[in-house]
Amino acid sequence: MEAINLERLKRHLLELAEIGKDDTGGVSRLAYSKEYYHGIELIKKWMEEASLSVKTDAVANVLGTRKGKTDRIMIIGSHTDTVEHGGIFDGCLGVLGAIEALKVIDEAGIELEHTVMVANWAEEEGNVIKGLIGSGSFVGKMEDSIPAIAEKLKAYGITPEDIRKSKFEDLDKVEKYLELHIEQGGVLEKKKKDIGIVSSIVGEERYMVTVLGKENHAGTTPMEYRDDALIKAAEMMLKLNKKCRQIDNTMVVTVGWIRAFPGEQNIIPGKVKMTVEVRSVRDESIRKLVDYMKQLCGEYNCSYEQTLAQNPTFMSSTLMETVKEAADDLGLSSMVMQSGAGHDAMMIANVIKDTGMIFTPSVNGVSHCPEEWTEWSDVEKSVNVLLNTILKLDKK
Amino acid sequence: MEAINLERLKRHLLELAEIGKDDTGGVSRLAYSKEYYHGIELIKKWMEEASLSVKTDAVANVLGTRKGKTDRIMIIGSHTDTVEHGGIFDGCLGVLGAIEALKVIDEAGIELEHTVMVANWAEEEGNVIKGLIGSGSFVGKMEDSIPAIAEKLKAYGITPEDIRKSKFEDLDKVEKYLELHIEQGGVLEKKKKDIGIVSSIVGEERYMVTVLGKENHAGTTPMEYRDDALIKAAEMMLKLNKKCRQIDNTMVVTVGWIRAFPGEQNIIPGKVKMTVEVRSVRDESIRKLVDYMKQLCGEYNCSYEQTLAQNPTFMSSTLMETVKEAADDLGLSSMVMQSGAGHDAMMIANVIKDTGMIFTPSVNGVSHCPEEWTEWSDVEKSVNVLLNTILKLDKK
Repeated sequence: MEAINLERLKRHLLELAEIGKDDTGGVSRLAYSKEYYHGIELIKKWMEEASLSVKTDAVANVLGTRKGKTDRIMIIGSHTDTVEHGGIFDGCLGVLGAIEALKVIDEAGIELEHTVMVANWAEEEGNVIKGLIGSGSFVGKMEDSIPAIAEKLKAYGITPEDIRKSKFEDLDKVEKYLELHIEQGGVLEKKKKDIGIVSSIVGEERYMVTVLGKENHAGTTPMEYRDDALIKAAEMMLKLNKKCRQIDNTMVVTVGWIRAFPGEQNIIPGKVKMTVEVRSVRDESIRKLVDYMKQLCGEYNCSYEQTLAQNPTFMSSTLMETVKEAADDLGLSSMVMQSGAGHDAMMIANVIKDTGMIFTPSVNGVSHCPEEWTEWSDVEKSVNVLLNTILKLDKK
Repeated sequence: MEAINLERLKRHLLELAEIGKDDTGGVSRLAYSKEYYHGIELIKKWMEEASLSVKTDAVANVLGTRKGKTDRIMIIGSHTDTVEHGGIFDGCLGVLGAIEALKVIDEAGIELEHTVMVANWAEEEGNVIKGLIGSGSFVGKMEDSIPAIAEKLKAYGITPEDIRKSKFEDLDKVEKYLELHIEQGGVLEKKKKDIGIVSSIVGEERYMVTVLGKENHAGTTPMEYRDDALIKAAEMMLKLNKKCRQIDNTMVVTVGWIRAFPGEQNIIPGKVKMTVEVRSVRDESIRKLVDYMKQLCGEYNCSYEQTLAQNPTFMSSTLMETVKEAADDLGLSSMVMQSGAGHDAMMIANVIKDTGMIFTPSVNGVSHCPEEWTEWSDVEKSVNVLLNTILKLDKK
């Protein structure tokens, strides 16, 4: 069985991590930054060393192609932009892992049925313009977003025409898409599994909720005369949390941001604004919780505004089975799981039926921070699964 | 029975309200501002029109004296500084009401036993340096605060020496202090009473509580693996609220300011900071609630820091009885009540045994905002009570 060269992959991951390394010990290599462009120069070099023919499109996706016996296309990809003060694995593992897999295939002189492309998608994180721009443009799903992001695009020197011309001309030939990514949660670690086989990416709705009460003097207003917006917000948070657990254990609800107004320690808050984010792979669960939230908004004198709506995405059973076979062949434990985070695979799945993802464990379930870590032994296992999945998929 | 001239008082209140009038429809006449000094020029003029001999001390207290038959001193006072976007009555009613009362006494040619001083205390609100500076300096209780406020004092051109030399030289001759103020709450309005006879000013403790949880990805961290600091903070707020009502209905607890960190809608808060403010006239009630708060801090992995500690202040029964008699004589309904807000009377009560306060209703119980209002008929009633209380006290 083919196996990757962990030392080489480790060297590449660490070399890329130097670019944008910041004083938090993390990496700030935001999309379209000087550091980002510096990083993709390395990606291109390593693609070429893996005998891939490299092309950069108009939105700065880097695509490295290995011609196969047929023009049926399989794409392996992820991203190398980071959040501010991010980690060294989020995204990068998928791109450098794919290059490593193709390098091994090249060294072994294996001829593939499929034409395989390694994709380094631009601006996955959405820190500078909007998330998933690279993969979204590639599959022709970014046009509707152009008006809303026109100014930001301009600031980074990208034109609407660049978005349009980055749509891949041979989309109809793309049969399979595979993405390896760190889990970003603690499920694999807690369940002691080597490999996550992603079945779905959660749908997500976001709301800004405004709770109204009556602003008043914190000293002169007895408890029984109060209409404290923050107390109402606290009750709502706890009720939403409880209801979420009752409805569906695949669902999560989070209030990550809150402000009380006027926000003085000696004034009873007359208004509270808070974000409510709901994610689940089951659309009907999201509906139930959001309906409950709206009902609470009625009871508690709140208004709400939806700020994001995204349907769940389902991975193909062919891909899931193939990843499972590859893990089994390598003697690795695996589990089927959902992804609570969005990924480029979500965009790709809009047009490519056979889309799948492989997850590798995150230490302590943290990501997007300097502490983000994946053990090198897990890196090796998951990229070997990637490699062997590619070889198996090629025969399907 | 002597009675005030409402039209004259109304004219003064409205004329003073023009100074610092802002575009919210409220008044911004912060202590030591240009507007504040402009305002006290009017105060001095009206004091002189009431035949008071006027003096301004080194911290900008304005003191107008009417010599009596004896050198036993009675002080009637309040303040004319406002909060930002405040109302026209908070403080001003007490100062202009006192001037009006003395003007009526002067017009009626009444000779008083007491030497009466009308005091316009500086910086009651504490918006620029620290609350109660004027009255605190007058009674010699600000010296300990000087190190903490030294820089701010300097910014407003006041020296530590100014604080020291503003201590009144004849404090030992001051027998009585009386202050008329708007209620700033909704109790008189709800109970349909004309006059509030203040029995006590609440004690107050303030804390900054830091709740610790575990910051994590809002999508990839299932509900059962979360340690959400904001959910813990919400539970604490509700428990504190419930406990407060159980312990003592004179007590209030308020969380007026809160922040979740990192404060992103897609990140589970790992830390929450919030203010907890407790007020009661019963020190033992405050102790019980604060002990409970500390116990919760233990249970919820929080730290806390005390930022204010102030004991309850009790008004003198002589003063309370005299206000009651004056209200009864005028056929006005009255009730004994606590003050949930701090006032200059709190500072004065440190050294003057016979200290008392009269409250007049606030429409909708709001204050410190452009909507702050007291009906003119209530203004008239309460200043007549002030006038008649002065006359009665003079005989005691």
